[in-house]
Amino acid sequence: MFPAAEGVAPAVTAVFTTVLTEGPISRVALARRLGLSSAAVTKAARPLIEAGYLEELAATERTGPGAGRPASPLAIRADREFFVGVKITGDELIGVVCDLRAQVRASAHRRLDAADVDHVLTQLGELVGDLLDGPGDYRARTRWLGLAVSGDVDHSTGLVRYSPFLRWHDVALAERAEKTTGLTVTVENDVKALTTAEQWFGEGVGADSFALVTVGAGIGCGLVVNGRIVSGAHGVAGEIGHISFDVNGPDCHCGSRGCVEAVAGADAIVSQARAVSGRPSLTFSDAVSLARSGDAAVGAVFARAGTAIGAGIAAVANLVGPARIVVSGEGLSAYDLFEPHIRASFQRQAFGAAAECPLSIRPLPFEEWARGAAAVSIKALVAS
Amino acid sequence: MFPAAEGVAPAVTAVFTTVLTEGPISRVALARRLGLSSAAVTKAARPLIEAGYLEELAATERTGPGAGRPASPLAIRADREFFVGVKITGDELIGVVCDLRAQVRASAHRRLDAADVDHVLTQLGELVGDLLDGPGDYRARTRWLGLAVSGDVDHSTGLVRYSPFLRWHDVALAERAEKTTGLTVTVENDVKALTTAEQWFGEGVGADSFALVTVGAGIGCGLVVNGRIVSGAHGVAGEIGHISFDVNGPDCHCGSRGCVEAVAGADAIVSQARAVSGRPSLTFSDAVSLARSGDAAVGAVFARAGTAIGAGIAAVANLVGPARIVVSGEGLSAYDLFEPHIRASFQRQAFGAAAECPLSIRPLPFEEWARGAAAVSIKALVAS
Ligand SMILES: [Zn+2]
Ligand SMILES: [Zn+2]
Repeated sequence: MFPAAEGVAPAVTAVFTTVLTEGPISRVALARRLGLSSAAVTKAARPLIEAGYLEELAATERTGPGAGRPASPLAIRADREFFVGVKITGDELIGVVCDLRAQVRASAHRRLDAADVDHVLTQLGELVGDLLDGPGDYRARTRWLGLAVSGDVDHSTGLVRYSPFLRWHDVALAERAEKTTGLTVTVENDVKALTTAEQWFGEGVGADSFALVTVGAGIGCGLVVNGRIVSGAHGVAGEIGHISFDVNGPDCHCGSRGCVEAVAGADAIVSQARAVSGRPSLTFSDAVSLARSGDAAVGAVFARAGTAIGAGIAAVANLVGPARIVVSGEGLSAYDLFEPHIRASFQRQAFGAAAECPLSIRPLPFEEWARGAAAVSIKALVAS
Repeated sequence: MFPAAEGVAPAVTAVFTTVLTEGPISRVALARRLGLSSAAVTKAARPLIEAGYLEELAATERTGPGAGRPASPLAIRADREFFVGVKITGDELIGVVCDLRAQVRASAHRRLDAADVDHVLTQLGELVGDLLDGPGDYRARTRWLGLAVSGDVDHSTGLVRYSPFLRWHDVALAERAEKTTGLTVTVENDVKALTTAEQWFGEGVGADSFALVTVGAGIGCGLVVNGRIVSGAHGVAGEIGHISFDVNGPDCHCGSRGCVEAVAGADAIVSQARAVSGRPSLTFSDAVSLARSGDAAVGAVFARAGTAIGAGIAAVANLVGPARIVVSGEGLSAYDLFEPHIRASFQRQAFGAAAECPLSIRPLPFEEWARGAAAVSIKALVAS
């Protein structure tokens, strides 16, 4: 068991978190990093080593000036415990098994014939069974299941308040999934889950602030400011998709017009591409093919979308000044069509030194959403 | 002397900060609020009482159910120490003397004939002399001077990196002002200084997040997220003025076009009002008068400006979700012309529950900037 009984010293959590996200790391470096004495670090590490979560790597000889005792860095034992992460969409469940370092060890999908809660839970139970009882024998070392859902999610209670794609209102998802699977369940908004994965295991490690922008059906944004994920005092944050871009632009489903999402969301791109091509049944991938084959009018639709996304990202940089920004999401399967326009628009709209903020623009494998869900459960283990 | 020797316990700072911003408050409530034992609160309060910063108010009898010993709330002795705050603009110094609760006790102005550093420092020395040696006899109980300057300021070193209105580059302002005045000097960006005043003594007290938007020559924004002022990893934050509003709008001095400031900054309003009225030497107050007397075209300029400001504020609410937003600044002398358009635009552009964020829209007396500067020095005392 994780030494998670009541009254675990904050130092234990701090040591575990730091080794997990920045290790392997020596006790001396840990003590410096956390402002603790060496004795306190050693004391905090002991129960973690005894429980099998941390290990001492072989001592490395120091040869530089001031070389003292050889250092034995502390490292995570990544296969001490496994975590299932599942992203729930309107027509599919995507599941992964991750180790303690959020590396994906196995993955599986399940189609959904309907989005009602009972059906989803039945399929979820079978998916988890497939993942844990298949090759790899993860069952014995897995206690946690992380779920990621788009929409308004109360992470603290595991309640899905509203998920538009699933048409769920007030579903006690954590409680119901615990009954179905026997695992301890965390539920998080999908963009926040991805942000957690980046914060703990990706480009956000060690950054006091960063932003993750997702491009797809919607345009979303996860934000870390002053070291913590931003949730919004009224339950709304990261809604980059509804920043004004063009006050005279197309109507947006939010009731306003010319929002970033009204120009750059997948639906908006399809409807603009249909209009300029005169092909009323064009799909998103048709539009991508047309633009790639040199159709100037459809190409301009992607260019304008990239410009809107770049302006939205610049708003994030201008307002909160993150150390770095990751731009990802399934929309970036059309990366080549968006990317130069995102960058040019960002450079034009970012104010002064805000333009120095590095942008990582990259496609997002769909499994990453499920990995994000698993990362939330890893974070929950550490906080427990 | 403030008990500020090295090694002051964090509990002393926490107790002082809480009584300062939320007091009078009983020891029991303090202990609950800070997660400290009653004994720890009593121990932390003792040196503050001995140094004259805190006092015990007369015990109030408790009469309700569960009434125990009468409570003696702790309160700040506001006149234990005074602070000078000065806002430096391109043509004027505005100075105030504040008490420990940031209440203004005295104020004075000085015209500047030039913005060169030597002249400004000479005038600053005389202004501080006027404030401290005039009626009120503040000199003996004043050790701190807070300065507020627009532009890029390094608060930690007191360096003004760049101030466009003053045309200053890399001025070691804190160091030079300490030599001139003999006081301990803090220097802060003016919008951040105002934000500090709101965070500690205004509408931001107790809020984990809030935003202060200033409307004037520029459109600025101070942000508190996760309990701390947002500074930006690349030195830029709160640049609400350069959020895109109308991609086809007028050119902005930042190099982009259609930014909030390019539509709603004072210069933009004057130039649009000149264009629609055909009066090339119209001033801002002329424009206000025309709009108030029913000139529809000039009124529409203010309406459009208010709409742009509302969209910028909605971007803040959509991205970081502050608990509340204060909109102020000297531009709000034309409050009546802006206000309904700011609110309508905010409501339209704020996404979902973000529209529930309360907006306080109010004029800003120019002395408030100087009070903000003083608030920064009060915060510095507490942190010292
Ligand atoms: Zn919208
Ligand atoms: Zn601009």
